[in-house]
Amino acid sequence: MSTEVLTAVGWLSRFESALSDTDVGSALSLFAADCYWRDFLAFTWNITTLEGRTEFATMLNARLSGVQPREFRVVETSTGVAANEAWFTFGTAAGRGTGHVRLKDGLCWTLFTALRALDGYEEKSGHSRERGTDHGTVKGRATWLDRRKADHRELGYSRQPYCLVVGGGQGGLALAARLKRLNVPALVIDRLPRTGDTWRNRYRSLCLHDPVWYDHMPYLPFPDHWPIYTPKDKMGDWLESYASIMELDIWNDSACRRAKWNQQDKKWQVEVSRQGETVVLQPSHLVLATGMAGVPNLPAIPGAEKFRGTQNHSSRYRDGADFSGKRCIVIGSNNSAHDIAADLWEYDADVTMIQRSPTLVIKSETLEKFGRPLYSEAAVEAGIDADRADLMAASTPYRLMPQFARPFVERIKKEDAEFYERLRAAGFMLTFGEDETGIGLMYARRGSGYYIDVGASDLIINNRVKLRSGVEISHFTEDALVLADGTALPADLVVYATGFGSMNGWAAELISQEVADKVGPCWGIGSNTAKDPGPWRGELRNMWKPTAQEALWFQGGNLQQARHFSLYLALQIKARWKDCRPRSTRLKPGARDTDRPGRWGLYGIRACRRRRPRRRRCYPCSSMASCSTFTIFRLGRY
Amino acid sequence: MSTEVLTAVGWLSRFESALSDTDVGSALSLFAADCYWRDFLAFTWNITTLEGRTEFATMLNARLSGVQPREFRVVETSTGVAANEAWFTFGTAAGRGTGHVRLKDGLCWTLFTALRALDGYEEKSGHSRERGTDHGTVKGRATWLDRRKADHRELGYSRQPYCLVVGGGQGGLALAARLKRLNVPALVIDRLPRTGDTWRNRYRSLCLHDPVWYDHMPYLPFPDHWPIYTPKDKMGDWLESYASIMELDIWNDSACRRAKWNQQDKKWQVEVSRQGETVVLQPSHLVLATGMAGVPNLPAIPGAEKFRGTQNHSSRYRDGADFSGKRCIVIGSNNSAHDIAADLWEYDADVTMIQRSPTLVIKSETLEKFGRPLYSEAAVEAGIDADRADLMAASTPYRLMPQFARPFVERIKKEDAEFYERLRAAGFMLTFGEDETGIGLMYARRGSGYYIDVGASDLIINNRVKLRSGVEISHFTEDALVLADGTALPADLVVYATGFGSMNGWAAELISQEVADKVGPCWGIGSNTAKDPGPWRGELRNMWKPTAQEALWFQGGNLQQARHFSLYLALQIKARWKDCRPRSTRLKPGARDTDRPGRWGLYGIRACRRRRPRRRRCYPCSSMASCSTFTIFRLGRY
Repeated sequence: MSTEVLTAVGWLSRFESALSDTDVGSALSLFAADCYWRDFLAFTWNITTLEGRTEFATMLNARLSGVQPREFRVVETSTGVAANEAWFTFGTAAGRGTGHVRLKDGLCWTLFTALRALDGYEEKSGHSRERGTDHGTVKGRATWLDRRKADHRELGYSRQPYCLVVGGGQGGLALAARLKRLNVPALVIDRLPRTGDTWRNRYRSLCLHDPVWYDHMPYLPFPDHWPIYTPKDKMGDWLESYASIMELDIWNDSACRRAKWNQQDKKWQVEVSRQGETVVLQPSHLVLATGMAGVPNLPAIPGAEKFRGTQNHSSRYRDGADFSGKRCIVIGSNNSAHDIAADLWEYDADVTMIQRSPTLVIKSETLEKFGRPLYSEAAVEAGIDADRADLMAASTPYRLMPQFARPFVERIKKEDAEFYERLRAAGFMLTFGEDETGIGLMYARRGSGYYIDVGASDLIINNRVKLRSGVEISHFTEDALVLADGTALPADLVVYATGFGSMNGWAAELISQEVADKVGPCWGIGSNTAKDPGPWRGELRNMWKPTAQEALWFQGGNLQQARHFSLYLALQIKARWKDCRPRSTRLKPGARDTDRPGRWGLYGIRACRRRRPRRRRCYPCSSMASCSTFTIFRLGRY
Repeated sequence: MSTEVLTAVGWLSRFESALSDTDVGSALSLFAADCYWRDFLAFTWNITTLEGRTEFATMLNARLSGVQPREFRVVETSTGVAANEAWFTFGTAAGRGTGHVRLKDGLCWTLFTALRALDGYEEKSGHSRERGTDHGTVKGRATWLDRRKADHRELGYSRQPYCLVVGGGQGGLALAARLKRLNVPALVIDRLPRTGDTWRNRYRSLCLHDPVWYDHMPYLPFPDHWPIYTPKDKMGDWLESYASIMELDIWNDSACRRAKWNQQDKKWQVEVSRQGETVVLQPSHLVLATGMAGVPNLPAIPGAEKFRGTQNHSSRYRDGADFSGKRCIVIGSNNSAHDIAADLWEYDADVTMIQRSPTLVIKSETLEKFGRPLYSEAAVEAGIDADRADLMAASTPYRLMPQFARPFVERIKKEDAEFYERLRAAGFMLTFGEDETGIGLMYARRGSGYYIDVGASDLIINNRVKLRSGVEISHFTEDALVLADGTALPADLVVYATGFGSMNGWAAELISQEVADKVGPCWGIGSNTAKDPGPWRGELRNMWKPTAQEALWFQGGNLQQARHFSLYLALQIKARWKDCRPRSTRLKPGARDTDRPGRWGLYGIRACRRRRPRRRRCYPCSSMASCSTFTIFRLGRY
């Protein structure tokens, strides 16, 4: 090979040649020593980041013949860094993909490949949209309304949904919309009476903490006058309209009581209480879209049972109307804690916040200014819509994010130095993440631990909301909360803004503890920082991807994630329905796929098969060869 | 001046110079002898087409100093015809506009100018969107929901809407959305219980006859999978969602009983029956968005009172479920007549259609293929969204449309020659417009007279729907309809698909016959063809523009018109609210504007002041000087 330094365009052409020649060696020679390949379904039928040539080699050797990558076409080389980056499209045996490559000295540093559509099952839009009416005359014609009414009558009774989505928040609705466009029969059930109530029922003063550009639902962007921070009730109404416009099939006032996987007929048995009536559903797939925050964490404080005031978890707090002039304690110091403290203060309550551990605080304005250039009015003007921004954001692997994040944190600390100084002076314990990587990574690692300041920090600085930080809680008396230093805080109300357990808590509650344990925790990337134990995973655990429980999926996260990752989850479910993944991913040819991650190519080894589930924990690590389950895929034992 | 042939860019620069020098002579020298200037508010504060240099001169002499046109900037020269056309933006004393110029041999053939935004009152969008939340902490903060609830409680009771819109179909809602974005307090009242019911209540089989690209509402385009022909119930649901998303203030189940203009305090007194309760509203402006089709036309057929079967106007027809095996007669041969005949046939009724006059028929597929290139998937791919397509469509004056339309008609006749032959053979009386100009002009002239074939023509061709054409109706007997030739058609159902009166029928019904007469008919351009008497008007009568009744407006038409013209109507109302039109348009300086067209610059002479309203009809004609009211504006008597 010549010593010329490849441009991204040239690189891609070489890469395609190597792949089409099934020449894994040549393909690998195109990568730098330090290299990352983030793949959403296209090569691995999973959401995964491979790190280093060894991992690439294993994957390519196993998958190349089945994936049949081809037709790489550069659609854009990034301006600024010019030839070092390119966006491209490509095809596989299963469908069409989009990708991105980032070079360093002519060798690939990061590669991103994402399957975006399944051949033969493309979503109908634009030229392929439906006609809406059957021209011509047909006796006994069923109108649109007839068909919608029939769906409503039959689905879940005489006709089973292929996919059941538990939870009708943004996650459930975004996924249902994707499935609808892919023609997968899906049903959403939600325990609340009206679509959007998940938002309406939150505390009175809540507005989205993320700005509008981040929050679009799939297919139907907000109109361009939509406010930057959507008020919760407006968000509820939006989701209600969205469900109507997208013709989603939803049962409201319908709670999932329990679910059981039937290995024999490969169906779930799901008991649903629909407006009081018990209905048993038998979907092939079960998606828990029950909120990324799982079951509320309620700390066991001695004497809580004898406390005569009100105790509420933050998820049950509505507003401070009843607490004017009353003494209120908010335990916790993240988003909800601050919002609730401020709301109580606005209602003239006497508020004390108890901060148990250091908290990341970032001013909302600062975050808007520096935080997400891809999701901003400037990005819109540059032609970057939400879908494109999602792909751009996804092109960076988690492993590299800290190095991009730290300068941003430094900038913020400088920008708001005075603010942080005053907050510290008020006794507030601050952090910017253990490794100073800021809010983005903290969100990926633990989904908590921060406050996006919309005003409450000033209340703390000015002592309008009293702060007790760095002190343990001892116990309750009848009318007070007593701290470890002996201080008794008289209280009429105690709000536990103490967060939520992992989403697999929902699996424990609805399915079984055994299944929850088998699946393991959701969220977190294995960063080995607080609340995100290692080993390294490189992608969010169990989110939008096959889990250790066949046909069980988790959909959740903020609106951006609900939007972007609903596509890949929907494609995975559609592919299972239509059985249209390439042969090589199914190691017993012809067998019905079972969605156990072990079946899904290389990445199967990551969520590996646990023979003795409770004792032998086996997650992938950098030295993969030492992983005892490494052979599962390679030997094709599944 | 040199003999060089100007390009559009060069032309515009000369034009701007002439205008800024207030050199009307030079400006006029830039126009061809055969020239048209279509203006939406920018120069005339009206919707008007001026024809010929004499009209331009009068207008410019009167208006130039007030309008202060400036900052003409070419934004695009059309490809293909290259330098002969250009799109441009410009400013006036009142706001910002968009325009288009079409040259012939370096001189202007057509000019189009449209005011698009008012300086200081721009719609909030993009960078200027609202924040949605007030960051910081405020005691007694009103949330979004509090404000929406207050609006709902107060509007129409303790706080009067500035503008009352009667009718919550697409016209009323599109206008309300525009007014909302312009911060004009507006209230929509609709007699039906649920937003969208105007569509839901139509006959069962109805789908929009216009394709999706034509039908977007303002600000919130349909998602890209939306079917081409929206089924009526889906349209109803869409409008309901639209109203929620755009935060429109609507009273459902609220009928307008009567309205009276109070000249003293410049307010309407409008009696509304809101869910049975009588409420009197006092808006400054009243918009009738009660359907472009006015009050149903019911022919007086002798003996109708003794007929024992069912008689229904098409607007009351729902479906044929009750008429299986029954003998049904549909009187009429336009869209509704055909749709209803087909629906009855699908329900196994025995159907006869009575065609009274020749009808224009065009196959829906053919219309989609050739009819509206600006509103098509191809246009979308070329970057032409609905808003842009609307402007492009508006750039051609009505006077020139026939010459563009005729070749299209010829093409259709050729394309579907066989179809038309068979239809004629079945006895169907066909027309393509008196002057062979096709459906587009027929719609502008009379809003009726055509059928966009979605299948019923085949029923007629195959004699499944029996046809009686070219025969008058004589009378009813107890069980039959008797034709002039003596044939008695036994019938269980007679549907009058006989159309509607002009929209000013609503003014007669809700206000008074006097006001209806003063205003005159709505719709039609004065083409001197059937149902559109001359003299020539050049724009649709009374639609979206000042009428002879102060503060009374008509909003209507198809979805494209509801979308596009709602902007100009909203701007006119906003300008009156904020009193921000240029001085020269108000001839008694400082006086509160009264919206009588006579006050609105040159175009005032078009809808002229009628001193003896019933006897002296005075519309503008080509020989304007002969118009007895010509002096009204010129002498500045108002």
